[in-house]
Amino acid sequence: MEFKINTLEFEKLLNRVMPIIPTRSPMPILEHFLLSIKDNMLSVFATDMQISLETSMNITSSQDINVLVPAKLLHDTIKTLPDTDIKISSDKNHKLMVTTDTGVFKISYLDPADFPHMPPFQELYHFTIDGEKLRNALETTSFAASKEEARVSMTGVLLELKTNEIRFVSTDGHRLVKLSYLNFENSIEKKIIIPGRAVSVVLKLLENRDIRVSFNDAQIRMEIGNNVFISRLIEDQYPNYESVIPLENDNILEASKEDLIKVLRRISLFTSTQTKQVKFAITKDILTLSAENIDLGSEANEKILCEYIGTPMEIAFNSSYISDVISNIHTDKVRFKLNNPTRACILEPVVKAENEDVLMLVMPMRLNV
Amino acid sequence: MEFKINTLEFEKLLNRVMPIIPTRSPMPILEHFLLSIKDNMLSVFATDMQISLETSMNITSSQDINVLVPAKLLHDTIKTLPDTDIKISSDKNHKLMVTTDTGVFKISYLDPADFPHMPPFQELYHFTIDGEKLRNALETTSFAASKEEARVSMTGVLLELKTNEIRFVSTDGHRLVKLSYLNFENSIEKKIIIPGRAVSVVLKLLENRDIRVSFNDAQIRMEIGNNVFISRLIEDQYPNYESVIPLENDNILEASKEDLIKVLRRISLFTSTQTKQVKFAITKDILTLSAENIDLGSEANEKILCEYIGTPMEIAFNSSYISDVISNIHTDKVRFKLNNPTRACILEPVVKAENEDVLMLVMPMRLNV
Repeated sequence: MEFKINTLEFEKLLNRVMPIIPTRSPMPILEHFLLSIKDNMLSVFATDMQISLETSMNITSSQDINVLVPAKLLHDTIKTLPDTDIKISSDKNHKLMVTTDTGVFKISYLDPADFPHMPPFQELYHFTIDGEKLRNALETTSFAASKEEARVSMTGVLLELKTNEIRFVSTDGHRLVKLSYLNFENSIEKKIIIPGRAVSVVLKLLENRDIRVSFNDAQIRMEIGNNVFISRLIEDQYPNYESVIPLENDNILEASKEDLIKVLRRISLFTSTQTKQVKFAITKDILTLSAENIDLGSEANEKILCEYIGTPMEIAFNSSYISDVISNIHTDKVRFKLNNPTRACILEPVVKAENEDVLMLVMPMRLNV
Repeated sequence: MEFKINTLEFEKLLNRVMPIIPTRSPMPILEHFLLSIKDNMLSVFATDMQISLETSMNITSSQDINVLVPAKLLHDTIKTLPDTDIKISSDKNHKLMVTTDTGVFKISYLDPADFPHMPPFQELYHFTIDGEKLRNALETTSFAASKEEARVSMTGVLLELKTNEIRFVSTDGHRLVKLSYLNFENSIEKKIIIPGRAVSVVLKLLENRDIRVSFNDAQIRMEIGNNVFISRLIEDQYPNYESVIPLENDNILEASKEDLIKVLRRISLFTSTQTKQVKFAITKDILTLSAENIDLGSEANEKILCEYIGTPMEIAFNSSYISDVISNIHTDKVRFKLNNPTRACILEPVVKAENEDVLMLVMPMRLNV
């Protein structure tokens, strides 16, 4: 077996698969790429038994091959080479040889028979979505998914298909994000939960082109250009999130996102280490943020110009949760919809994209008196 | 007490002192700045009991003050403010108040009586050196100082004053750096050892201006513009490094620094994890670097064009040590002076700066057969 390849192109190919490779896995064989050539198509496949990715490109090879190569060593070797054409070949001693103008790098490979396989994927349902739309939905929701394994369903992003709608939901119990694309061509009604790690790998692959998504009750498969991504789904019940979203939040506050972020960054320095509580005191045109750390004897307050239609109110939030949510709203102004200091607060962009409905929610904290 | 200050200027002042502040010290009081105003001079002082730094600037204040302020909280607060003039004042409740156009930040301060003091500095000897020269000497030597506490003297940089010479030496037993400035106006003969941490703090302060350095047997003091830096010295015997430097290394190899660094980066991936051994096979005009990892069954070799006058030789080095040394030689070409595969190898820049003599040394490893 022998083929020529450009180092930068090969590096790009390996870069895509590297995030799948587990580090210090109890199964060291998973730290290998399955590298195969068939009919002049070079494929690199990796799996951690939860998710897998296969990526491929055309090359010209005299022979087919199917071997397991240590992922990090091959990737590092290619990364440290300059932009040049190299020759990849195999020798009789189970070695992959990388040959450049000045050097030879030999890497032992293993027999692919030892590589574990994921269960074969059976397509039951499918839809097509624009890559940029999928990226926007996953980026907007994934930050709010739970980092704690206690309720495994909440560590993923809910993907909900409805007639002419696709919806993405995440929540960790303290905040919630719901993003819907309306007028989305679809006729099936299904809910699946995509694991957080799968979401973060997919986000690195998405491009501005149509993605074919297919799934069954246990697995999801995405075809993204020359990449085929498969992940297990979280087979669990997602919490009934709709009951949490308040309907009668009539007090409307609008303020600059940039002001809010900058002031929160300063005021957060003065919150109590335990509660991280920041207080919002809202009047007609002034929003005052304040915090106090009794242990250290430090306190701070700062004012922001705002527009508020509603009853003057004091409401408190965990500074990290409210900062995260505001950071993920992508307009100059943020709208808060409030009911009262003990009820969930809705946040949304003041300007919404066409056919896109995004709603974020943060639970308030009990006010320190 | 009340004064106005620009946030960026105040931040610059605090930035200089922050590296002194210990994190999670057994003495939490050391996590404070001593902030004082006397005769319209604002000074900020910090110490970790080994090193201390005082930095100052002119301001206009109605009153003097002398208080201990939590360093990280004040620094973070100033850092997160935009470029603006702020008012700093103190209130009756032992609070320092930072007032901006939109906000008020109150930080409790402590009584300076509780702050530990370093022993007063007694000047016995002194010299003056250009800041850029001192930076060059400390940067060139400090990387080779030992990271292990076993022989404490080797964790520092030796500063040796001789008649019309100042010399800096570092070694960890595997490699050694010696840098001398000749024709250096000086008449005292003294050796002191500056702790590694003091060197790294000083490197952040040095400017292109004359530095006044004074010392006694226990402490060193540097006056760098408006900064006064004091450190304890390592009061121990420095190893007799001169006996290690070989005199008869007649085999001379010259090669491009860039080639060496790039090839070492690749070949290092293939070294044994335990020994990190990389082999140099040297002939008249070809230097071949090679490595082998028997456990993984991987190996690599790569050729570099070179100029060699001497007996063809194979010599092995620890890849990290030789890479570090070559990286710290600041010319396009590196000269190796070799004796035989079991004797120390000298490395030096092919072109030397005027009145500067720099010599690096790496111990070889026993060759794997």
